[in-house]
Parts: sequence; structure tokens; C-alpha cells
Amino acid sequence: MGRADFSYDFPHDRLITVDDLNPLDIQIIFERAEHWLNVNRSPDKKHDVLRGLTQINLFFEPSTRTLASFELAGKRLGADVVNFTASNSSTKKGETLADTARTLAAMRPDLLVVRHASTGAADLIHRETGIATINAGDGMHSHPTQGLLDLFALTRRIGDVGGKRILIVGDILHSRVARSDVGMLNLLGAEIRLCAPPTLLPVDVDRWGADIFHNLDDALEGCDAVITLRLQRERMSGAFIPSTREYFHFWGVSERRLELANPECVVMHPGPMNRNVEIDSALADHPERSLVLDQVEAGVAIRMAVLEQLGVRARKNEELRR
Amino acid sequence: MGRADFSYDFPHDRLITVDDLNPLDIQIIFERAEHWLNVNRSPDKKHDVLRGLTQINLFFEPSTRTLASFELAGKRLGADVVNFTASNSSTKKGETLADTARTLAAMRPDLLVVRHASTGAADLIHRETGIATINAGDGMHSHPTQGLLDLFALTRRIGDVGGKRILIVGDILHSRVARSDVGMLNLLGAEIRLCAPPTLLPVDVDRWGADIFHNLDDALEGCDAVITLRLQRERMSGAFIPSTREYFHFWGVSERRLELANPECVVMHPGPMNRNVEIDSALADHPERSLVLDQVEAGVAIRMAVLEQLGVRARKNEELRR
Amino acid sequence: MGRADFSYDFPHDRLITVDDLNPLDIQIIFERAEHWLNVNRSPDKKHDVLRGLTQINLFFEPSTRTLASFELAGKRLGADVVNFTASNSSTKKGETLADTARTLAAMRPDLLVVRHASTGAADLIHRETGIATINAGDGMHSHPTQGLLDLFALTRRIGDVGGKRILIVGDILHSRVARSDVGMLNLLGAEIRLCAPPTLLPVDVDRWGADIFHNLDDALEGCDAVITLRLQRERMSGAFIPSTREYFHFWGVSERRLELANPECVVMHPGPMNRNVEIDSALADHPERSLVLDQVEAGVAIRMAVLEQLGVRARKNEELRR
Repeated sequence: MGRADFSYDFPHDRLITVDDLNPLDIQIIFERAEHWLNVNRSPDKKHDVLRGLTQINLFFEPSTRTLASFELAGKRLGADVVNFTASNSSTKKGETLADTARTLAAMRPDLLVVRHASTGAADLIHRETGIATINAGDGMHSHPTQGLLDLFALTRRIGDVGGKRILIVGDILHSRVARSDVGMLNLLGAEIRLCAPPTLLPVDVDRWGADIFHNLDDALEGCDAVITLRLQRERMSGAFIPSTREYFHFWGVSERRLELANPECVVMHPGPMNRNVEIDSALADHPERSLVLDQVEAGVAIRMAVLEQLGVRARKNEELRR
Repeated sequence: MGRADFSYDFPHDRLITVDDLNPLDIQIIFERAEHWLNVNRSPDKKHDVLRGLTQINLFFEPSTRTLASFELAGKRLGADVVNFTASNSSTKKGETLADTARTLAAMRPDLLVVRHASTGAADLIHRETGIATINAGDGMHSHPTQGLLDLFALTRRIGDVGGKRILIVGDILHSRVARSDVGMLNLLGAEIRLCAPPTLLPVDVDRWGADIFHNLDDALEGCDAVITLRLQRERMSGAFIPSTREYFHFWGVSERRLELANPECVVMHPGPMNRNVEIDSALADHPERSLVLDQVEAGVAIRMAVLEQLGVRARKNEELRR
Repeated sequence: MGRADFSYDFPHDRLITVDDLNPLDIQIIFERAEHWLNVNRSPDKKHDVLRGLTQINLFFEPSTRTLASFELAGKRLGADVVNFTASNSSTKKGETLADTARTLAAMRPDLLVVRHASTGAADLIHRETGIATINAGDGMHSHPTQGLLDLFALTRRIGDVGGKRILIVGDILHSRVARSDVGMLNLLGAEIRLCAPPTLLPVDVDRWGADIFHNLDDALEGCDAVITLRLQRERMSGAFIPSTREYFHFWGVSERRLELANPECVVMHPGPMNRNVEIDSALADHPERSLVLDQVEAGVAIRMAVLEQLGVRARKNEELRR
């Protein structure tokens, strides 16, 4: 990949779902992410792209690793970054989400990164404030930078995913990761397979453009990549699965099982992993097969790329308004 | 307002209450706040005024929005900012306030921002350490940057408050905001009215230089601005008020009620608001009448102005000592 | 002390225990700490030594003051600093320590500062990631920057400790501070005395190279410095001591008691202090006798010196790998 052509004007002032993006946007983001990924491997990680801008990370749900990823991304690009976490916030004093958003907006940030337990929170905040907003996960709905980083990490390893067969296995019902990955895979023309127990599939899954499987061995046939999902034990209200051991037996991915897929098939997981539940421990650490740490590294790079596009656009808009 | 004359040497090394300030100090702070408010609306919000200095925000009470405001202010001025919150601190291990203060002082910060549940905490810390200290709220006593930002936001909207009639309504007993606003209004020569149920007035209120009302309709007559206060439900130890609905009936401010005041009368609230308790929801969002978000924006600018004055003075003193 | 000779290449890529260090390393660290201590007293505390590098403070145990010290140190040297505290982290979601470490490592930090309740955690993290790691306290094992800062503060006050008689008194069993101080004192050739109730001594204490006392008055004879330790009440699982009052009677250090030592004998405490338990309150504040605040100030300077050595080395290594 070459360097991004800076004459391209990123046409969005928010990233709420991957459906906001067209293939050219994704190409630009991937090219810039490739640039930042290499920068991050150097000892000169500090840049001035967002100097003068303020980024507020507004996290109503705890997520230390996603927060750290966005915080690192913003700081390395030179933004002033402030974390605003809900644990002590005014929302506990009865303030509405819209009031919290407008209050923060009055402090004149240029970029908002929002995580919230409810679908639509980031979208609401963007509409209330007009500030460039990145959805860092809203309920079970969407987590677009996860979708971008998964496909960026995957593309770097196996090349263009167009026409490739990609399987997502596990707790699809509760997973905004699955929704975001499927959105990206559709945009990029992959053949999508989903495999889950019927209790962990959403009701509208037939409209996802994917082939549905209930048997993992069948589903693996001819796959180029398998995306395993975290078993969201903390989100389950009922008894979706009998035990983690039984879960691994039916839905866990191991090196042996992966032999049913294509010879070079790789495996992914958004983390944090439950080893030997969703994924066999040895496979998770396999240098050729596992992309787990590539995904984390890709995450910082993708977030830098997205913050850069939205930040540069926000700066231009602010300059025009003056 | 013009630019501040930089030949003015700010004569204080702390801001504990607004009573520390004389009218010229306030003029300088307002002029610099006007400057920073405009800077904050630009995409070039990062400056070097406090570069080389360290600001520690020492918050023994949680207050995400005030903390974010001070953190943003310090970072935009180029200081290194460290948050030190009490939830995990040594105070839990039995350390005295003075020891915590001296320990932090030994780390050689140049600026301390202190919030504490007890009256006099910021003053104690300043006297123990000699470090430039801003009181960000000490119990029911004082919150000087709130007083400054309220009057700054109000002055920007209605001009000089000298001779204007300003009403403060609500839970005056528990409010350091009310105390700080009254201090500012007295300094600036406004006519002050207070309106509250007798149970929510402090015993020394007759020495505040204000006219006292127990009927809101009477109190509103001829007012130029109404400052509503947050109902501090979490602070009330007894049954000061029967219900929030009854509270709104007697002490809540609505658009209709505001017709009893002067035609251009504006309304303020320090936030977070209990909508339809202290203030009618429609009025809170009224573009001409409500200053609620102006107050938040003014808050960052005022804090930058105060940090600038104290920081520049601290730097001079440190240079002289060398 | 003169300026460090920059032609010295610091030979370590981690600081897990003080036993990692040789006398020349310590001399270099002390010389650089002297430099940074003076810088920290100036109004120009911001430097570019670590600009371009990322420091992650990975704290699994809460410790606000140690965290603040490392955070200030990194920021003043120009690093991008991110705090990653365990309270909300993935470890709560069942992730192993090694997975958390590898995940953070994939974000490409250059420096890790690790505090953990378990012995060996920082070492494990360094071996898993290969990233320059500073142990900021692992269980009862080691806290090397505390050992360095204690000896740096002491050396600044009483000169070279070689041949001097230094007493450590109190809860030695639970103290990583004691272990780190003893390591340093042995390296620097001091005569070490330990004084504690038999219940608060470790079983291997006869191999520490120290003389053991159970009577404080005897132990004080001829001492040049007394290091008091925090009574780790929160760590004690059984009834090691009858009451804090009785503890002070037998093991507390007071001005009067200090008359049994050498005339210039100084007293130290790692903080936070239990006044009138481990140390008499008046003695703790004594301008000539107490080094308590000198230790805190030395802490930031020592951490800057260590971060500088490890960071400069990490940058060189990263450049070589490119």
C-alpha cells in the first residue's frame, strides 16, 4: 500500500457504524493505518497532526483496553486527551445523556470517543452536539473501529478478503463485534459464514447476508479465516449455555479442528480471551495461525487513522466558520 | 474588552474565595477569559503559557465535570497535568490531609487545584505547602471559579451587572455556588435577591447584603437574571422539602414565571440540572433565556485565566528564588 | 556530583530488583537524579528526553502516590504517559496476567511501570513482552525505585553510606521497602541493623547480611540513620501486634529515643505515615532529623533518572532494529 493521497477529503464527521463508510473511505483509512502502524514501531511515535485539538473519551461502560487504545492514539497524534468516565459522573446525579453530552460539548472538544451500554448513544451525542464522534461500542449494536481493525489485520495477513470465505463463530447474539465485522465483510465482498448455537443468534440473522451453520466442523470447510468471539458471560441474563467445557466442545476452535479449514486459515479473537473456552490456548499463541496480537496493534493504528481523518476535517470546518 | 495589559502583576498566590479578589483582579481575569474563550472556539487550542509547569488536581470529592474543566484548562495552556483522586489515595490508609498535601508538594508541582468536602481544606493546603492553590470547592463554603464563571457568562450576555437586579433561588443553605456568586455580585455592585424556603437559608443570611424573599413571584419582579441552584438531594440530612414536584411548584423557574421579571431576564444553573425540579426543561434549553451552556464554556475560559495568572506568578517567584 | 557522562551505556533493559544494579549503575542513576532534582525545583520542568516514547503505568494494586510520582516523572521527560489501572481492567474478565501484558505490549509502549500484588509479576511481564520494565512493587518482594530513592535521599544528607550504621525498624516481614533498602545498603557497603518483633521478621533474615535486634534502644546505639517502616495493617492476616499504642512503645521512634543514636542521626519513612505509631509526630516534622519529604522529592528525581536510562536505551534498540 502506498501513502494516502491527502487531496482526498474524508466525507464524514462521525463514525457510528461501519455502514457509514464506502470502499474508498476504507481504503484511505487502511492506507493511513499502515502508515501509523509503522510509526508506532519506531521510537518516534509522537506527531503533531492533531496538535491544538481536544479529544474527550466519554466512557459510560468500563473498558480499560479500548480506552487505552484510543488514549494512546490521540496522544501520539498530538491531541490533548481527557478521559471522562461514568463511574463518578453527573449521570449518577440524575443528568440525562443529552445534557452530559451538551455540557461536554460546551467545553469545545474537537473529537468525542463514546462508549455506552445503549444502542444509539453515540449517534444521539453526535446529533446533539455536532462534534466529530467515534462510536467505541454502543450496547450490542456497533463497534466500528473493531470492525475496521479486524479487517485491517486480516487483510495485512491474507490479502484482499474479496471472495474469501470468513467464518464468525460464537456468541453472535450479544456481539457488536460480529455486527461490525459482518458489515465490513459485506462491504469488502467476502463470503460470510456464521456459526452459533441457535440460542446465541439474533432473530434478524437471515438479513445479514451470511450462511448460517450450527455445526462448527461443517462451517470450517474451506475457510480462510475464523473470527472467534468472546463469550459474554457478564451479559447473559439466562442459561444460554450449559457449561464452558461443553461450549468449548461444540464451539471452541482448536488447532486440530482448524485442519478442516483451508491450509493457511488464520484465527482471530477480539479479546480478552477465555482460553480453552472460545479458543484453544495453544492456537491462541500460534505464531502463524493466530492474529490476536496483530488485532491489538492494528487497533491503535486504525484509531489513529480515523482520529486523523475526523480531526483534520474538524479543523478545516472550524477554520471555515471563523 | 481589550487584551489584558501584561504589565499588571497579579497580586495573589492562591484563589480560595472570591473575597481574595479586588475589582481590578476580576477585570484582568475577565479580559483573559474572553481571550481564552475565543481561542477555545478555534482549532488551535494548545498554548505554551504554562509549559514547564506541573498542575496537580487534588480531588477528594468526585466531580467529573469540574475535574474535566480544570484538566482541559491546564492542558490547553501547556502544563503537565496529573489527577490525584482520593478514591484510591493514602487518605484511606490513615494519612492526614496536611501530610497528603506536603507529600504532593514535595513532588514540586507549581499549581494545585483542590476539591474537598470540608470547609478550609484548600486554604490549609495552601498554607502548609506555599504552592499556588485554587479552591475547586470546599464543602458548603466556597467555589470561586464558579462565582467567576457565572459572573463572566452573565456579563458577556447582559453587560455590566452594577446596579442590575439578580435573584438567586433555591437551596442556598447547602450551596457554595450561592456564597461565591453573592461574593462576586457584591464586589461588582449588583442588587442581590435571595429566594428560598426558610429551611434552606443559612442562619447568617442577613449579613450577605441581599434582600430575602420567601415567595418566588414577588422575588422575580424587576430582575435581570435568575440564578437557579441545584437541589443538593445527596447533601440533605433531613426532610427539607416534601417532594420534588412540590419544590418545582414553589421554587422552580419556568418561562411563564419569568414573565414576572424584566423582559430580557436570563436564567442560569450551575449544573447538573434536575430538569423540571429547579428549572423548567423548555426554559433550560431556551436559546435567548438560558445561559446554562454559556456557563460551562465560560468555566474552561475562566479556569485558564486563573491558572495563567497564578502560573505566571509562580514561575516568576521560582525564578527569583534561584 | 557532576553531570553524568553520557558515553556510559546503561546495560539493563529492566529494573526488577536493586540486585540488577552494580555500583556504577547506581552512581549514574544518582548523578542523573541530582540533575533532575534541580530541574524539578525550577519553573522549567518539561523536557524532551523521552519525546516520541510511550510509557504505560500498569497498576494492579492501587497506589495513588507512587502512580503520581511515575506519571509526573514520565510527563516531565516528554513521554506520552497512559495509566492502566486494574480496577476496571480485563483481568476482571478472566484474562491472565500474561495476556494482559502481551495485549498492552502490542500497543507498542517503550516503557512499562508495573505494580502488582504478586512476587515476580513485573519480571514475568518483562519476559513475556521484552519491553523495558520498571517494577513499582511486586507483593512483599521488591520495590527498587524505593530503595534507590531512600539511599539517594540519605546520601544527599549524610554523604557516602559506606561504613555507616543504618537501622531499619518495624514490620520487616511484609516490607518490600525493607528488602530493597537492604539490597541497596549491602551494595553500598553500609553496616545494616534490623530491629523488629520476632513475629515481623522473615524466616530467611539471617541471610540478609544484617545484625538483628529485638530491642530498639540497643539497636539505636551508634546509628547514623533510622529507616522506619509503615505498619502494614491492611496486610496482616493475624494478630502480629497487640495494639498501635503498644507498638509505638516498643518500636516507635521518637526524638528522645533518637538520642541513643549518633548526634546527627536522621530518620526516614516511606509514607504514608501512621503518626505516633511508627514515628513520633514531632520527629516526623523535624527539619534537621526527618528526611520524609526529601524521600518524596527524591522519588520523582530517581524515577526520572531510571526512566531516562531505560528509555534512551530502548530508543537506541528500536533504531537498531529498523
